[in-house]
Amino acid sequence: MAVLPPNVSAADFDKALTELRAAIGADWVFSSDDDLGPYRDSFSPIWDTEEERRAGAAVAPADVEQVQAIVRIANRYLIPLFPISTGKNFGYGGPSPNVSGSIVVDLKRMNRVLEIDDKRHFALVEPGVSYFDLYRHIQERGLKVWLDVPDPGWGSPLGNALDRGVGYTMGYYRDHIGASCGLEAVLPNGEVMRTGMGALPDSKTWQEYRHGFGPDPAGLFAQGNFGIVTKMGFRLYPQPEHYRTGMITVAKRRDYIALVEHVNYLSDAMIVGEAVYSNPLAALLAKPDFMALATKQGGAPESEMDAAAAAAGLPSWQVELQFYGPEAACAANWAYAKDRILSAIPGAKAVDGEAFPLPATPEQLLNTGQPYKTHIRRNGALGIPSLGIWKIVRDSGHVGFFPVLPRSGEAVYEMQRVMCDALREFPLPPFFSAVTAPLYWPQFAFQMVFAPSVKKEDPDHNAMVDRSMRKAIEVAAKHGWGDYRAAPIYQDAVSASYSFGDHALRRFHEQMKDAIDPNGIIAPGRGGIWPKRFRK
Amino acid sequence: MAVLPPNVSAADFDKALTELRAAIGADWVFSSDDDLGPYRDSFSPIWDTEEERRAGAAVAPADVEQVQAIVRIANRYLIPLFPISTGKNFGYGGPSPNVSGSIVVDLKRMNRVLEIDDKRHFALVEPGVSYFDLYRHIQERGLKVWLDVPDPGWGSPLGNALDRGVGYTMGYYRDHIGASCGLEAVLPNGEVMRTGMGALPDSKTWQEYRHGFGPDPAGLFAQGNFGIVTKMGFRLYPQPEHYRTGMITVAKRRDYIALVEHVNYLSDAMIVGEAVYSNPLAALLAKPDFMALATKQGGAPESEMDAAAAAAGLPSWQVELQFYGPEAACAANWAYAKDRILSAIPGAKAVDGEAFPLPATPEQLLNTGQPYKTHIRRNGALGIPSLGIWKIVRDSGHVGFFPVLPRSGEAVYEMQRVMCDALREFPLPPFFSAVTAPLYWPQFAFQMVFAPSVKKEDPDHNAMVDRSMRKAIEVAAKHGWGDYRAAPIYQDAVSASYSFGDHALRRFHEQMKDAIDPNGIIAPGRGGIWPKRFRK
Repeated sequence: MAVLPPNVSAADFDKALTELRAAIGADWVFSSDDDLGPYRDSFSPIWDTEEERRAGAAVAPADVEQVQAIVRIANRYLIPLFPISTGKNFGYGGPSPNVSGSIVVDLKRMNRVLEIDDKRHFALVEPGVSYFDLYRHIQERGLKVWLDVPDPGWGSPLGNALDRGVGYTMGYYRDHIGASCGLEAVLPNGEVMRTGMGALPDSKTWQEYRHGFGPDPAGLFAQGNFGIVTKMGFRLYPQPEHYRTGMITVAKRRDYIALVEHVNYLSDAMIVGEAVYSNPLAALLAKPDFMALATKQGGAPESEMDAAAAAAGLPSWQVELQFYGPEAACAANWAYAKDRILSAIPGAKAVDGEAFPLPATPEQLLNTGQPYKTHIRRNGALGIPSLGIWKIVRDSGHVGFFPVLPRSGEAVYEMQRVMCDALREFPLPPFFSAVTAPLYWPQFAFQMVFAPSVKKEDPDHNAMVDRSMRKAIEVAAKHGWGDYRAAPIYQDAVSASYSFGDHALRRFHEQMKDAIDPNGIIAPGRGGIWPKRFRK
Repeated sequence: MAVLPPNVSAADFDKALTELRAAIGADWVFSSDDDLGPYRDSFSPIWDTEEERRAGAAVAPADVEQVQAIVRIANRYLIPLFPISTGKNFGYGGPSPNVSGSIVVDLKRMNRVLEIDDKRHFALVEPGVSYFDLYRHIQERGLKVWLDVPDPGWGSPLGNALDRGVGYTMGYYRDHIGASCGLEAVLPNGEVMRTGMGALPDSKTWQEYRHGFGPDPAGLFAQGNFGIVTKMGFRLYPQPEHYRTGMITVAKRRDYIALVEHVNYLSDAMIVGEAVYSNPLAALLAKPDFMALATKQGGAPESEMDAAAAAAGLPSWQVELQFYGPEAACAANWAYAKDRILSAIPGAKAVDGEAFPLPATPEQLLNTGQPYKTHIRRNGALGIPSLGIWKIVRDSGHVGFFPVLPRSGEAVYEMQRVMCDALREFPLPPFFSAVTAPLYWPQFAFQMVFAPSVKKEDPDHNAMVDRSMRKAIEVAAKHGWGDYRAAPIYQDAVSASYSFGDHALRRFHEQMKDAIDPNGIIAPGRGGIWPKRFRK
């Protein structure tokens, strides 16, 4: 039995499906429960409840013209559309829509690599191209360019960028939407628009100059609902000659503050790629005494943390630095980083990592050294898509809250303490404790991870997870920390926390949404933006 | 006699001025001819003609609340506002509005450096802060951070970024709007909105994570008219340790194609900053025979250009590379660049440039070596604002058309040939010839310069310049090349060339403009976007 969208009759929904079959072929219109199974969010904490967001149907157009036809039909019947690229956005809703009954527009068949240039270093792709597809295409042609990849690699560069995914190489390239360059979208009225230089017919520089002329609306399409993106360009990182890693450790908890400042310098001066922070004391969490210390109400006292480190013979923090470039420059940069940090922080130590020419050999990719416990991250650091991250997915998956915090040791300690206390009431692993390390995925900021797992068979657990997510969002916002990305079920809560000026930003978007999409067809609710007919 | 905006009576305009005086103080409302002199575009090719775009009045608010009051008054009387930061956008209209009679909102009094962080490397500034102001502020506090500067340095970082200005250091930082992070704007309804993480009250990461949550409208404010930007954040380049330059020359004209590919690699791998291309044969243009060759209809034959180079004992092309970083890494990167290019291109030569620790000494800044004929560009390369570029401004100034072209030797040769032929009919210096070098200001694209000078006393000359500008825009567009920035008098023509999908982008903007600014108050016409009441 089909789930219907709000205020749409079964008869109208059926008529729409009939028109859709005529427009794109009956084989590509899915409405049976079986066919719609893959469009459910298998990580959903509200799986099989009334609230689960389920597609009413799904369509898989072959080309831009079919996307246009779908949009026009949806306008006639006021049926919301929910575009997905490969639908692998797990942890953030997967392929499931904001509004139950929406027709998922599955763009997997639009999977052409339209252009790759290994001299000017860009790619132009369709939504259905996956990281694996693009990687294989590049390898088969023997091109020496990298696209920064997230984990896992089965997703779509276009879809990942639109949800503001991040990766593991140099700062500029790690920000996937930031490293995009030009897009094409089918607008809610069915017209096709190109941004940047693509707005100039037969442009020669669509993937080389992102801004175009006049205002640039490209940012509206990320986490937004102003159209269905059908092409996107990306800047590619030309394959570096050489790769080198090195580890810095600091003895005292206080030293972390200076360490972060030095690494900020190295990163913003483009001397290092992703800096991988970790806290060696995390290994002690298995001991109840240390767990109690690391999660102590009000924060772990510095002296006790230092004593714990000394007793265990462990440094208080460590960071692995990654260098890309000519061999001698990698060595010189690592020597500089060591000298800079070790001369400034008494007790800091450096451990040389590996160094090898690129591309890496299979053995080098399988490296299991610190802090790459597995080869998952090594692949990412070298621009190679992988599925290894599935090894760390527990239970039926998870939901994710990744608050953005300043790149400073003080900020890390504050978030550890505040979020640990805020989430103490929930029976969950200690996502926030005195040993929680920040992720350095964004180009210029840190993030921490709150990703409690969900259990399909345990609705009570899932309800607890849901409460913990909502509390995390709320407490973080009170401290000036916002989430960067959310599943549909959390988008309203996160969006509500971006409330400056009585929600001026959201109301600005709503005004534009109503103008561009008066029928509220495209992904109502995405990014917290609801069209007029859905607003309370 | 005041110039009135369209459809506004003198009586209403006076009433508005009276209200403005009450709102922000009579001293800060300017309406006499004398007071409005500085708001004329002194580079205008239509100076003192009926068409000259002249302000009807100007107001200089002290703070955001006064900007809000101004916007509300303008809404009541339907008077267009034209916001400027420091008003130094010469070559692109200076402080003059798109619509005569507009009230210029001069933000020069809002000149606070609100925050600078030399550990997380960002600044938050108001519109009236100039590059000089910010530089002095940084020096006085002894901070080791650079803001990439354009020429001249008297402009505003905020205003320059909004007009998509460019600079001279590393690629990421050269793109001034690209390196911005978060903005605040007074909307056409008088409300204040913040983008990015600034939408989260008391955000801790406004200048560190640019995207925020949900769609990001920040791009609409660049070359746009969706609000008056009152604060903007910028990423700062932490001062590198060392600076080094090196020159590569290639013997044959054909070699340029490979040279560009290698430099693209070095740039996209973040090994070099701005690469400064120049053609040594440009020195021969004084000779009529060579001028005839370099501007030959249909392009200069390669063999003849090679013969001319050989006869003059000059290389066919040269590029100066700039390296920033630890001393040993600069040396290693330069050695790599030399080896890479010299081993790939027979006849290529390398000349070591200078190398010195940063900050530079006054003598190092005054360096007059190749290709920095003066110290103008050296200052820019080291993040120091200057006024030196005024030395090359001729006559009464100039207008500018800077078409964006692909980073390839073939594209350079095509644009040289096509634009040279297209502009042959105009009695102007050879902006495009076989020796015209591209500018490498954008992060990933080239630009060329067409900047004919204007002469206040010679309307016939200026009319010719105007025709040449319009032809240049049109011919370039036919070849897929678009302008990145234009004076108000050329914005409609440039915008019209971005016509993909029957001007889908412009119509998209118009729809949003009408929703956000129903009275068409903010800078009507800016970026080619006209509000409904001004559209034909």
